[in-house]
Amino acid sequence: MRRIEVIGVEGLGEIESGDPLGRLLVEACTRLGVDLLNGDVLVVAQKIVSKAEGRTVDLREVTPSAEASRLSAELEGKDPRLLELILGESRRIVAKGRSTIVVETHHGFVCANAGIDLSNIGVHRALLLPKDPDGSARRIREEAQRLTGTAAGVIITDTFGRPWRLGTTDVAIGVAGFGPLIDYRGQTDPYGYELKASVTAVADQIAGAAELVMGKTGRVPAAIVRGCELPQHDGSAQELIRPAAVDLFRGR
Amino acid sequence: MRRIEVIGVEGLGEIESGDPLGRLLVEACTRLGVDLLNGDVLVVAQKIVSKAEGRTVDLREVTPSAEASRLSAELEGKDPRLLELILGESRRIVAKGRSTIVVETHHGFVCANAGIDLSNIGVHRALLLPKDPDGSARRIREEAQRLTGTAAGVIITDTFGRPWRLGTTDVAIGVAGFGPLIDYRGQTDPYGYELKASVTAVADQIAGAAELVMGKTGRVPAAIVRGCELPQHDGSAQELIRPAAVDLFRGR
Repeated sequence: MRRIEVIGVEGLGEIESGDPLGRLLVEACTRLGVDLLNGDVLVVAQKIVSKAEGRTVDLREVTPSAEASRLSAELEGKDPRLLELILGESRRIVAKGRSTIVVETHHGFVCANAGIDLSNIGVHRALLLPKDPDGSARRIREEAQRLTGTAAGVIITDTFGRPWRLGTTDVAIGVAGFGPLIDYRGQTDPYGYELKASVTAVADQIAGAAELVMGKTGRVPAAIVRGCELPQHDGSAQELIRPAAVDLFRGR
Repeated sequence: MRRIEVIGVEGLGEIESGDPLGRLLVEACTRLGVDLLNGDVLVVAQKIVSKAEGRTVDLREVTPSAEASRLSAELEGKDPRLLELILGESRRIVAKGRSTIVVETHHGFVCANAGIDLSNIGVHRALLLPKDPDGSARRIREEAQRLTGTAAGVIITDTFGRPWRLGTTDVAIGVAGFGPLIDYRGQTDPYGYELKASVTAVADQIAGAAELVMGKTGRVPAAIVRGCELPQHDGSAQELIRPAAVDLFRGR
């Protein structure tokens, strides 16, 4: 029988800049009595990765540029300091709504607010995405392997909206130890029909599955997903980014 | 410890028009030795729902309209009979690529090809989405409850692409027995910051989690997802559709 388990990893406490996140995650698993196994995927919320990597900004120390101030007036007075941070983390603006701004980050992710968070951080504070989420995933993977001898995949997740569907889902912004896409193209179905457009974003589905136990309270900032079939190459979340040439929704 | 299980439901055999899908699913669970429990979500692939509901079309019996033929010339000779079906299932065209067409279906879902499948059906055959996927979910839920006495949620899933990310993820196109969105708005974080934009598409994340065991081979067309926290009202997949007023990517 095909079976997958998703186990919430809690008890990490408040994460601070400089904390050794890989070790803290392994210790939290040990306290829960859950050993990482080969083939497991350890899913880690971006928020604790960014905190450990010191990606917190004090909004009181941000001076909005003229462009940020102009955008603020356009976006119902959205905090110009936040907009300054968003512009600094972005390659381009993809779309603007009444008070919403969707951008392409320097990593290539298209999301609202460049993934910058204001919740669960503290007053006057904003939290930026990790500079290199694949690198963050790789470091956690290597530290977990050093401590446990186990080769687990790692995903760093963030919470993204979708253009035509309400509600957010978690997706992978960093990947280490497996390939994030399963490519069925070239295979044929039982009737001999060649599967033409079948590439599954397995890493994003694992991210969403993990969110089902992680939730939004901050108490469960990581999860182990066990039993997935995974492409065995050491992949990158960059593989999940749609190239401009096949993007029908590039925006302005 | 927060824990979720995803269990593949296989052994249903080839589904034909008129098959009693609710009963077949319950029987398959019984053969696997897995009892549906209250609070479980039974996730069912659209493909077997559409087959059971007789939504198969013989492409040889489709006569393309002038518009379908014109579109075919525009889209690298894409089968004009398929385009005729796509237009018939759609409210409007959202975008066109080289050989890709993204539409809004009569249900309101924005997806490629109006969700029409050519794989795993047989030569010359196309499979349309269920006319009323919420109704399909409700009928499966009621039949399962009648046979087992258990109140499970039901999701009908389909496989959708995403505009800025490669690879597909499964999403909910039909829902019964629970609410597909978890709304955190108005709650405050531990620092007193009010969560403003936090609505989670739990049904879509469950759909993606189920795909991790279902895959694309057709052998595992359903799954049980156990242990999720679910909004308790009897919801609809319509709740997942972003209204036009807050859609920044309406297309042409």
